[in-house]
Amino acid sequence: MKGFRDRVVIAGVGYTKFGELWDKSQEDLLVEAVYEALDDAGVEPKEIQAGWCGIQYEFTGLSGGTPAEFLKMYGIPFTRVENFCASGMDAFRNACLGVASGVYDMVLACGMEKLMDQGSRGLPDMGGARSVMMQYPPAPGMFALAATRSFEVYGWNKETLANVAVKNHEHGSHHPKAHFRKAIKKEEVLKAPIICWPLGRFDCCAMSDGSAALIITTPERAKSLKHKHDYVKVLANAISVHTMVPWFHPKYDFIGFPSTQQAGRLAYAQAGIKNPVEEIDFVECHDCFTITELLNIQDLGLCKQGDAGKLVEEGYFSYGGKLPVNVSGGLKCFGHPIGATGCRMLVELTKQLQGRADGLQVKDAKIGLAHNLGGAFTVASVTILGRNDV
Amino acid sequence: MKGFRDRVVIAGVGYTKFGELWDKSQEDLLVEAVYEALDDAGVEPKEIQAGWCGIQYEFTGLSGGTPAEFLKMYGIPFTRVENFCASGMDAFRNACLGVASGVYDMVLACGMEKLMDQGSRGLPDMGGARSVMMQYPPAPGMFALAATRSFEVYGWNKETLANVAVKNHEHGSHHPKAHFRKAIKKEEVLKAPIICWPLGRFDCCAMSDGSAALIITTPERAKSLKHKHDYVKVLANAISVHTMVPWFHPKYDFIGFPSTQQAGRLAYAQAGIKNPVEEIDFVECHDCFTITELLNIQDLGLCKQGDAGKLVEEGYFSYGGKLPVNVSGGLKCFGHPIGATGCRMLVELTKQLQGRADGLQVKDAKIGLAHNLGGAFTVASVTILGRNDV
Repeated sequence: MKGFRDRVVIAGVGYTKFGELWDKSQEDLLVEAVYEALDDAGVEPKEIQAGWCGIQYEFTGLSGGTPAEFLKMYGIPFTRVENFCASGMDAFRNACLGVASGVYDMVLACGMEKLMDQGSRGLPDMGGARSVMMQYPPAPGMFALAATRSFEVYGWNKETLANVAVKNHEHGSHHPKAHFRKAIKKEEVLKAPIICWPLGRFDCCAMSDGSAALIITTPERAKSLKHKHDYVKVLANAISVHTMVPWFHPKYDFIGFPSTQQAGRLAYAQAGIKNPVEEIDFVECHDCFTITELLNIQDLGLCKQGDAGKLVEEGYFSYGGKLPVNVSGGLKCFGHPIGATGCRMLVELTKQLQGRADGLQVKDAKIGLAHNLGGAFTVASVTILGRNDV
Repeated sequence: MKGFRDRVVIAGVGYTKFGELWDKSQEDLLVEAVYEALDDAGVEPKEIQAGWCGIQYEFTGLSGGTPAEFLKMYGIPFTRVENFCASGMDAFRNACLGVASGVYDMVLACGMEKLMDQGSRGLPDMGGARSVMMQYPPAPGMFALAATRSFEVYGWNKETLANVAVKNHEHGSHHPKAHFRKAIKKEEVLKAPIICWPLGRFDCCAMSDGSAALIITTPERAKSLKHKHDYVKVLANAISVHTMVPWFHPKYDFIGFPSTQQAGRLAYAQAGIKNPVEEIDFVECHDCFTITELLNIQDLGLCKQGDAGKLVEEGYFSYGGKLPVNVSGGLKCFGHPIGATGCRMLVELTKQLQGRADGLQVKDAKIGLAHNLGGAFTVASVTILGRNDV
């Protein structure tokens, strides 16, 4: 079995501003992101042979008809991919498979979500009947369990969490497309209203609207496109799906996510990465909650178990530190329009690797990693992208 | 660009009975179909490297977590594919891309839907807010428009439609897994209550529960499995997505489906088929309504425009006729558990090509075609499978 390395590359990227986009429809968002990506690649809409679109909620869109209709790209295959918070990155993965298969050589991966119009103060319920197996609490309730266990096991506290929020908001304050562009103080985080103890308002990412898109092709075709000298390589992509009800597992300890651990291992193996801390230059890590980032950092092998809290405090994962995490501002500053997030992270990675980041540019970035975690810690996706010369 | 031919094969298949399965849950259905397919292939669950599951409605299941949880296949990637009535066949397509890419060499394509528990007398509404673009009438209302136009243009009438129902119910009466296993008389069809004129009760397929699954691998690996001598080749697979609101197109004539026409053309080109009538031995064609089968037959180039009605009446598309269509009984007899249907058709094709059909066996079947049409005539998928020796 082989990965994508040297077979699949990113030829162009685009994304909308993320935020409360009351004046834009789903159509507006997808069109803006995709046509920006097409323009960035120097590819005509009619050259696209297939598309995959990450959408979580059916009020955002249904089936392949949604992207086909919005983009006026009729006649080709379009697939809606829904995989919890990894929907966007799974759309990307399937698009990469399409190119690696040799069936297509110019495809679109995109994602979007329009959450604000729903009038909900948190993620709307999925609706419909469910089996006993599928009952689960809202996201803050689930991740609060991970936080309280981490407090107990690692000695972390609300300040440990607050440091993540302060770091990511400092980063995001520089990013023109972020939902929240204001640095915040630790005291503000600590004093914020509690959503689900110990997670306060600044420990949680926000509801948001947005869309992001990538044009994916072969290295051969990329050489005749706009980014012929700086197209970006897909070094690895792995998804791992675990149980939807971890709390029913007697051995589950809530201080790590098996899906992230496994997706990380698989991705490192595919990319030939032995020492992620030394080989990876920056990371976009799923920070739907501050605790999520801390645990995922550890699960991805970016530090020892229990060290993430201290290292965040020391600036190790800050811009300018040893291994910057969420230099874009992360979900904390962008919000989390579910279907869009994975694709947005990959847009950030691509632009960083091309030396044209929006917001803070990581110096001499050669390899970047993006990570999503979705469901009840159920599905994790890890993508590793590399500069043309790695 | 190349297709799947000689790179992707079907190693095993399984499916549940379709029907009102009040005593079975989604879990039961998926487990039954998938483990039957694994057993048929002679493959252990742990050998599966990735899976794609077609599910339309979120009350049936969400994300990759649903199949992973139900099947207890943790750690690997699972993707939920939702693409209207083509969801199952699109799951199959993505699984084929996975194998053709060389990233995997043993994967699962499956589909399921549990519609009966919803208490609805037709397909449940998708729920959620929609844009103006996404408003559409229920399925019988849409296909009735095609029927009335066909009456006008081709001179068809309710008897023309009834012949399709009689044919398919005669076929399905022989199939042990069909929802409806009773032959019906033309008079019954004509006298049945009207759902949406001219479509009466027997012109519409039923609500149903069911699941189907396929194990997909490379020809190389298939040679060491149970069906080493009669694994089935994927000769072509194409999906074409068109507008979700055809009635807004001034030139749309309602006597054919551009998505079916295009998917057919693409699939024939991939499979190297020049004369489908001569080269294809049998067809599973989307017959959500009797009118749908007639128009799709024409769109697939299986007869001249306007001839389908007459040819059905003459037995040309019946078992024993020149080109049998829906020898399984089709959606008319199986009902249409959306996510399952495309996979079920491919199970039928596989077993026919292996000479072990449930129900009526087409004599010396070498090449079979399966077709879905979904949404507002929006998405069409066509898969062509071939016997080992073609």
